[in-house]
Amino acid sequence: MATDVEIAQQFTPRPITEISDALGIDREHLHPYGRDIAKIDLKALNGKSGKKGHLILVSATTPTPSGEGKTTTTIGLGQAFTQLNESVCLALREPSLGPCLGMKGGATGGGYSQIIPADRINLHFTGDFHAITSANNLLSAAIDNHIFHGNQLGIDPRQIAWRRVMDMNDRSLRKIVVGLGGKNQGIPREGGFDITAASEVMAMLCLADNAEDLKRRLDRTLVGYNYQNEPVYAAQLDVTGAMMALLRDAMQPNLVQSFEGTPAFVHGGPFANIAHGCNSVIATRMAMQHADWAITEAGFGFDLGAEKFFDIKCRIAELDPDAVVLVTTVRALKMHGGKAKDNLESEDLEALQQGLGNLDKHIESVELFNKHPVVALNRFASDTDAEVALVRARCIALGVSFAETTHHADGGKGSVELAKVVMASIKKNSPFQPLYDLDLPVVEKVRAVCKAMYGADDVAFTKDAEQDLKHVEMLGLTDLPICIAKAPSSLSDDPELHGRPRGFEVTVRQIQINAGAGFLVILTGKIMRMPGLPKKPAASNMQLMESGIIEGLE
Amino acid sequence: MATDVEIAQQFTPRPITEISDALGIDREHLHPYGRDIAKIDLKALNGKSGKKGHLILVSATTPTPSGEGKTTTTIGLGQAFTQLNESVCLALREPSLGPCLGMKGGATGGGYSQIIPADRINLHFTGDFHAITSANNLLSAAIDNHIFHGNQLGIDPRQIAWRRVMDMNDRSLRKIVVGLGGKNQGIPREGGFDITAASEVMAMLCLADNAEDLKRRLDRTLVGYNYQNEPVYAAQLDVTGAMMALLRDAMQPNLVQSFEGTPAFVHGGPFANIAHGCNSVIATRMAMQHADWAITEAGFGFDLGAEKFFDIKCRIAELDPDAVVLVTTVRALKMHGGKAKDNLESEDLEALQQGLGNLDKHIESVELFNKHPVVALNRFASDTDAEVALVRARCIALGVSFAETTHHADGGKGSVELAKVVMASIKKNSPFQPLYDLDLPVVEKVRAVCKAMYGADDVAFTKDAEQDLKHVEMLGLTDLPICIAKAPSSLSDDPELHGRPRGFEVTVRQIQINAGAGFLVILTGKIMRMPGLPKKPAASNMQLMESGIIEGLE
Repeated sequence: MATDVEIAQQFTPRPITEISDALGIDREHLHPYGRDIAKIDLKALNGKSGKKGHLILVSATTPTPSGEGKTTTTIGLGQAFTQLNESVCLALREPSLGPCLGMKGGATGGGYSQIIPADRINLHFTGDFHAITSANNLLSAAIDNHIFHGNQLGIDPRQIAWRRVMDMNDRSLRKIVVGLGGKNQGIPREGGFDITAASEVMAMLCLADNAEDLKRRLDRTLVGYNYQNEPVYAAQLDVTGAMMALLRDAMQPNLVQSFEGTPAFVHGGPFANIAHGCNSVIATRMAMQHADWAITEAGFGFDLGAEKFFDIKCRIAELDPDAVVLVTTVRALKMHGGKAKDNLESEDLEALQQGLGNLDKHIESVELFNKHPVVALNRFASDTDAEVALVRARCIALGVSFAETTHHADGGKGSVELAKVVMASIKKNSPFQPLYDLDLPVVEKVRAVCKAMYGADDVAFTKDAEQDLKHVEMLGLTDLPICIAKAPSSLSDDPELHGRPRGFEVTVRQIQINAGAGFLVILTGKIMRMPGLPKKPAASNMQLMESGIIEGLE
Repeated sequence: MATDVEIAQQFTPRPITEISDALGIDREHLHPYGRDIAKIDLKALNGKSGKKGHLILVSATTPTPSGEGKTTTTIGLGQAFTQLNESVCLALREPSLGPCLGMKGGATGGGYSQIIPADRINLHFTGDFHAITSANNLLSAAIDNHIFHGNQLGIDPRQIAWRRVMDMNDRSLRKIVVGLGGKNQGIPREGGFDITAASEVMAMLCLADNAEDLKRRLDRTLVGYNYQNEPVYAAQLDVTGAMMALLRDAMQPNLVQSFEGTPAFVHGGPFANIAHGCNSVIATRMAMQHADWAITEAGFGFDLGAEKFFDIKCRIAELDPDAVVLVTTVRALKMHGGKAKDNLESEDLEALQQGLGNLDKHIESVELFNKHPVVALNRFASDTDAEVALVRARCIALGVSFAETTHHADGGKGSVELAKVVMASIKKNSPFQPLYDLDLPVVEKVRAVCKAMYGADDVAFTKDAEQDLKHVEMLGLTDLPICIAKAPSSLSDDPELHGRPRGFEVTVRQIQINAGAGFLVILTGKIMRMPGLPKKPAASNMQLMESGIIEGLE
C-alpha cells in the first residue's frame, strides 16, 4: 500500500487562482501564500447575508484512539460532490504542529482523499497558529510586566488564569515557575504552557464574526483576579490592540484544494473538549457563500464536537446545517462491543452487534437537534461483507439513511453514493433546536447535556466546581453557553467505558470562565492541555529530502 | 512631520513579480506571500559561482541607544543606485517581533527610505522567526522527553546548554524551573527562554550554504553533557530531520522592495554580539548573483558587527566586500565627545571635535581589513552646517571619502552623492585580510580582536572562562572563529565609556560553544538574551484600523 506522501506525488495541484475563480472569489480578495495556498480577504464575505449554500455537518460515533476517518470522509464527500459536478466547498480545521511532530502525524485526510499541499498545511501553513501563539504570549508578557512595573492593577500572581502557549508537545512546560533570578528578572510565580490549540485566543478567533467582534472578545477576556478578588480583564493590560495587529492576517481563512480539485477553507483549530472544536465561523460562512454545498466537520464524537457545534457555534453564528453525516467504522463498533483494541481486524459479528448501541445513541442524539442523520460507514479493507451488512440492517431498522464509503482507496468516486444520500436527506431536516436555553441555571444546562447527549442519570458538582460557580455568578456570566470537557473515548466521563454506558453520573470538577470566547468550560476530568511526546515521536521519522519533499509526515 | 506609517501610505508597492522579473529571477522560482512579498527558491542560486555583483558593506560608528540610521542609510543608498539606473539589490536582516512590541518599534528603515510592506515585515513576515522558534523548541522538547523516557544517553539535567526560545520580550521566562508537578509531568530542572534572534538555529540558518550544510550544522550542535561530562550533540536526539522539515521554507530568502522599487532580500536576523549579526549568506549571494551592486549591513558598530561580518561570515562564505560604508551622525559623535544624551540637538563643536576620535578609530579598523571606507554622515535636521563641515574636514584630513546624506527626508535622491562616492571607492580596495588566523590559540584570537578592533591594552580571562576553554580544547574546537559579545554602546567592554577609550583591559567571563553555527561565543559582560518590556511597551500604542492598517508600529 502506498503511503499518503507517495499518493500525494501522483497529484499536481491546480493553481490556487483556478480554485478561487471557480468559487467566484474576486482576484482582488486573494492573497497567495505560495502557488497552492491563498488567504481570502474578509471583504469577500458578505456579513451574515449573501448567497447561502446548504451546510452539511460531518460528525462521528465515539472514536477509537486512531480516529474513524472523519476528516478523510469529509474530504471524500467533498470530492464526490465535485465528481457529481456540484458546486461544493469544504470548511475544515487547521492541523496543530505539536501533535504532527508527536504522536499523531498530519491531519489532512488520507489515501485518495487528502487536501494539499499536506506538508505545508501540517507544518506552519500560513502561520495562523504562530500568530495565535504570539498574541496569547504577548498578553502573558504584559501581565507579568505589569506586575514587575509596580502592579497598579493589584493583580494577584496566585490568581492569574491566563497561561502561555506553544505549538509543541512539551510536557516539561505544563507546570513551571517563572520569574526567578532576583529583582531584575521578574516576579516568581507558578505558571505553565498549554498547546496553542488550547489558547482561548484560538476559540475567540474561530467564533468571531469579524475584526470588531474579535477585538470585543479579546477585551473582555478574563485574565485573573486582583488582591481584592475582583476580575481583571485583558482590556486593562493595554495590549489587545497589538494582539489584533498580530491576528490581522490570521483572521483570513486559508483556501486550499483536495486531490480532485475540491476547494477547501482550512481555518482555525480549537480543541473539541475545552473549546468548541470546529473551524472558524468565518470559514464556514465563506464556504456557504461561495458554493451550493458547504461541508464542515466537528471534532471527536457527536456528543462532544457536534453538541458544541450546535449549542455554541450555530447558536452564536446563526448557522443551521441542512444535513448531518455520522461517520462510523466496523472497527470502532467492534471495540464498543468489547473487542480488544489490538484485534479489531478479524470478523466478530457478536462484538459488532453489541457495539451498535454506540451508533444507536449517536443517532438518537442527532435527532434531539431536530435533524436526521446519514450514517456513513467508512469501510476498511479488513471489514467483511457480513459485518457491513449488519450495520446497514440496523440503520434500515431504525429508518436511518446509510451509505458505505471507500473514499480512502477510491477518492471521490468512493463517496458518490454517500453524496447522493446526503443530498436527498436535506428535505427531512427542520430548523435545529438547541439542547438547552441560555437562561437556564448553569447546573441545569450541564444536566441537560449530560443526560441527553451522554446518557447520564445525573450530574454531581465537586466543592471546587461549586466555588467556581459562585465566581461565574459574581461576574454575571451565568447566561453563557457551556462547553463540556470530557473524555473523547467514551460517552461517559470514564474513558474506559465503551459502547453505550448507562446508569452513570457525571462529575463536574472545575469550571473555567472563557469570557472572551463566550462560554463556560465545564471540566469533568483531567483534560490534557499540553500533550507530551512519546518515546519515539513522529518527528524522529521525518526527513527533508533533496527534492524538498518531507518524508515521514503522515 | 509625517509618521513613517503615514509616509508609507503615499507609496503603492509594485507587484513583487515585477521586482523579481527585473532581477532576472525565473517566475518558477518565486513563491508569493501575498502580493508584495515572495520567497525565492534556492534553485535560483547558483552555488558559490554565477554572476557576481559588487558587494557593499554598510557599517557604523559606535551607536547611540536610538541607532544612527544604518538600515535607513542602507535602504537610502540602494534607492540612490536605483535613481542612477544601476542594477542593485539590498540584503538586509529580518526584524524580530519581540522588540517591535517592546521598546524599539519596527526595523524597516524610516522616513522616505523604507522597505515595504513594513507592517508585515515587522510582524510575522513569512514566518521565518516562527519556524526557527519551532525548530529550536522541538529540540528542547526532545531533550526533556529523552530524559523522561529513561535517559538512555545519560544527559545531565544540570548541564543542558540548549535553551528554549520565544520571539517576545518576556523577562519572566529568563530563569524558570520546568518539569514540575510530579512523575508524569517531566523532570524538574532549571531552564529558560532566550529571544528567538538569540537561538543558535538562527545563526546556523544564516551561515548555511544550503540545506545539506544546515543539516550538518544542526547535527553537530552541542546540546549539553552527560553524567560522564561527555558532550551530547543534537544528532543524538533524532529530531534534526524534523527540524530541517520545519526550516525548509525559512531557508528561502524573502524578496520585498523599497519605496522606490529597489529590490531587497530580507532574511535572517541574528544578534550582533552573541551571534554574527548579519542577514543570511544565502540572501547575500542571491543579491550578488542578480544585481551589479549588492548592498548589505552588519549590526551595531563596526567593531561588533563588521568584525564578525569579515572574520566569520566572509571567511566561511568566501565573500569579500568591494566597498565599506561607515555611517555616522553628528549626534552620536557629540555624545562620544561627552555631551549629554538628552541634549544632542544643540550645536556643540567642541563636543563634536572631541567625539571624532570614535570615527577615527572605526576608520582605522576598516583599514585593518585592507579596505578604505566611505564615511556617510546621516544628516539630521538639527545638525548645523558648521558641525557637518567639521566632520567633512576630518575625513578630508585623513584622506577618507565622505558624503552627507539626506535619504530620510529625500529618499534615494538624498543619497546619490554617497552612491557615486561608493562606486568610485571600489577601485581602492584590496582583498580582505582577516584579523586573525584560525589556527591561533583561542586566547590569541580574542587578544587580536580586542587590541585591534576595540583598542584594548590587553585581555583577562576569569576562572570560569578558563574552565570553558578547557571544554573547547576537550571537544577539539579551538580552530573555530570567535564571536565576541560586548556592550554595543562602547568600543570597550564598559557600556559607559564613550568616544575612543584607551588603556583598558577586556575581561572574558565565559565562553559558549556554538558548534553548530561554528563559532565560540566570547562573553565579556552580562549580555541580555531575553529582553523585558518597558513600563509602557510599544505594543500599547498599536491598533488595527478598520482599513486593515496597523497604527503605532514604527
